[in-house]
Amino acid sequence: MEHSFIAWAKQRSSKLPSVKLGIGDDCALLATAGEDMVVTTDSLCDGTHFILKECGPRRAGKKLIAVNLSDLASMAATPIAVFLSLCLPRSAAGDLAAEIFEGVFEVAKEYDVSIAGGDTNVWDGPLVIHMTAIGKTDPGSAWTRSGANIGDAIFVSGHLGGSILGKHLDFAPRLELAKELLPKGLVTAATDISDGLGIDLLNLTVASRCGAEVKLDQIPLSEAARELAKTSGKSAVDHALGDGEDFELLMTVRGELADQFPSQALGIPLTRIGTIVGRTGLWTKEKSGVKQLPPKGYVHR
Amino acid sequence: MEHSFIAWAKQRSSKLPSVKLGIGDDCALLATAGEDMVVTTDSLCDGTHFILKECGPRRAGKKLIAVNLSDLASMAATPIAVFLSLCLPRSAAGDLAAEIFEGVFEVAKEYDVSIAGGDTNVWDGPLVIHMTAIGKTDPGSAWTRSGANIGDAIFVSGHLGGSILGKHLDFAPRLELAKELLPKGLVTAATDISDGLGIDLLNLTVASRCGAEVKLDQIPLSEAARELAKTSGKSAVDHALGDGEDFELLMTVRGELADQFPSQALGIPLTRIGTIVGRTGLWTKEKSGVKQLPPKGYVHR
Repeated sequence: MEHSFIAWAKQRSSKLPSVKLGIGDDCALLATAGEDMVVTTDSLCDGTHFILKECGPRRAGKKLIAVNLSDLASMAATPIAVFLSLCLPRSAAGDLAAEIFEGVFEVAKEYDVSIAGGDTNVWDGPLVIHMTAIGKTDPGSAWTRSGANIGDAIFVSGHLGGSILGKHLDFAPRLELAKELLPKGLVTAATDISDGLGIDLLNLTVASRCGAEVKLDQIPLSEAARELAKTSGKSAVDHALGDGEDFELLMTVRGELADQFPSQALGIPLTRIGTIVGRTGLWTKEKSGVKQLPPKGYVHR
Repeated sequence: MEHSFIAWAKQRSSKLPSVKLGIGDDCALLATAGEDMVVTTDSLCDGTHFILKECGPRRAGKKLIAVNLSDLASMAATPIAVFLSLCLPRSAAGDLAAEIFEGVFEVAKEYDVSIAGGDTNVWDGPLVIHMTAIGKTDPGSAWTRSGANIGDAIFVSGHLGGSILGKHLDFAPRLELAKELLPKGLVTAATDISDGLGIDLLNLTVASRCGAEVKLDQIPLSEAARELAKTSGKSAVDHALGDGEDFELLMTVRGELADQFPSQALGIPLTRIGTIVGRTGLWTKEKSGVKQLPPKGYVHR
């Protein structure tokens, strides 16, 4: 539902001069006199994005802000302010609100972000926590999903897969990494890996009107992906392609300058996993020839 | 819960130079090079802020954006963009999303606002709809709650009370009225009437470190307030003080220039209902002397 709805909504939304980029990327871009404002918004629902009984309200709050800051990182934006909105179950509203706020505050402090507003509501439903995060970039410098060109190299940060074992709740949004890489001027497009490498790479290529050829044996696998593969009936590569919530950066880099791109930065590995190609879709080379890659993983080899 | 939580959260939030105004007003203010960005955020929950079965998804969407634009109006901001976030019940997610979007779009078009982003989630809970709205003002020109001074006149737009009979769903955010009044330079503080005249006026006086003396017989009563009073056991004035969701402007005006303030603008009546005083709290004059006014209405006369 989400994709067709987004496409439909995008097409219906009016174009205003001050909205440089609207629906369809990780964040929107609003032009102001001297800089671009970068805006993103995410809701997390108890039972869907976190299990309150298992993780507790403070970790849910931490995840909420980290997810939003990861979106800002994927645009290479500097965060300014977040807005926290809570729909609290009646039974324990006050305690929940305070604990969620503490979690948000902990991360906000770490990245020097202001909690600048929000609203709280008490209702009879389960917990819903919502955040809007606002950052800034120099005009025209934000990374978007649509800048990839044929021949660009595809890089990912960190290790992928198996986030359900813990990383989906506890991760560092790649703000500092993006800040480190931005001035090099090599990144042509970027997104963060939230839905899964396969889907997120496909989204990036669709936005850039191209395709991608992935070297499956080059994908950096997390320990958690290997661990899950022991019992899941899927390969570790499947987990890396399909699990999602890695919150790592997926970037394309100008092809002719790809060897200038560092293999690590700030201690975080940066791994080339493939190349942007003209044929739309995701592809991988096998002995039998080029094969289309299902974006959700489950690659049986 | 809300007020103590807000106060606590405000005190905990870090002060950044680019956040001119954070938690505690109708919107936050972010400074950019040439103008101030005005940000507000509101969630509406099925069963609390609207009854989906009664009003339908399209009117819920209209209310969502109108509530947010009313917050921008209360800061005299020009809206730029809104961000829509949906937590959709699994049973009819696609239809609901489309209808809500249509409602939002209808109002967005009317006020030339871009729907610039958001997210959609499907879950097992009831419908939650969330919006963040961003507007702009010239630096330093936004109305806030904290600018009222002793001797200022208190004005309200329109007629108050009884919004439950329909106005709480169908109302015009006072953006154009605010735009009309801003250049006169007479308004010292403002908010919109969402919780009820009594509570919203009290909040404004607390932010301005003062009090208010209200002339109860001057409050402009809506037909709906009079209608409800026939059967509710409360007076129409009680309804005007306590019902809330009028989404009219509550403004203070420089005392010595109050007679220059128009009695109507754009066809909307502007009525003086009292004066800002030094003694904190809400007060009204009766034959027996000055009496404290309970902010929630229920004034037995």
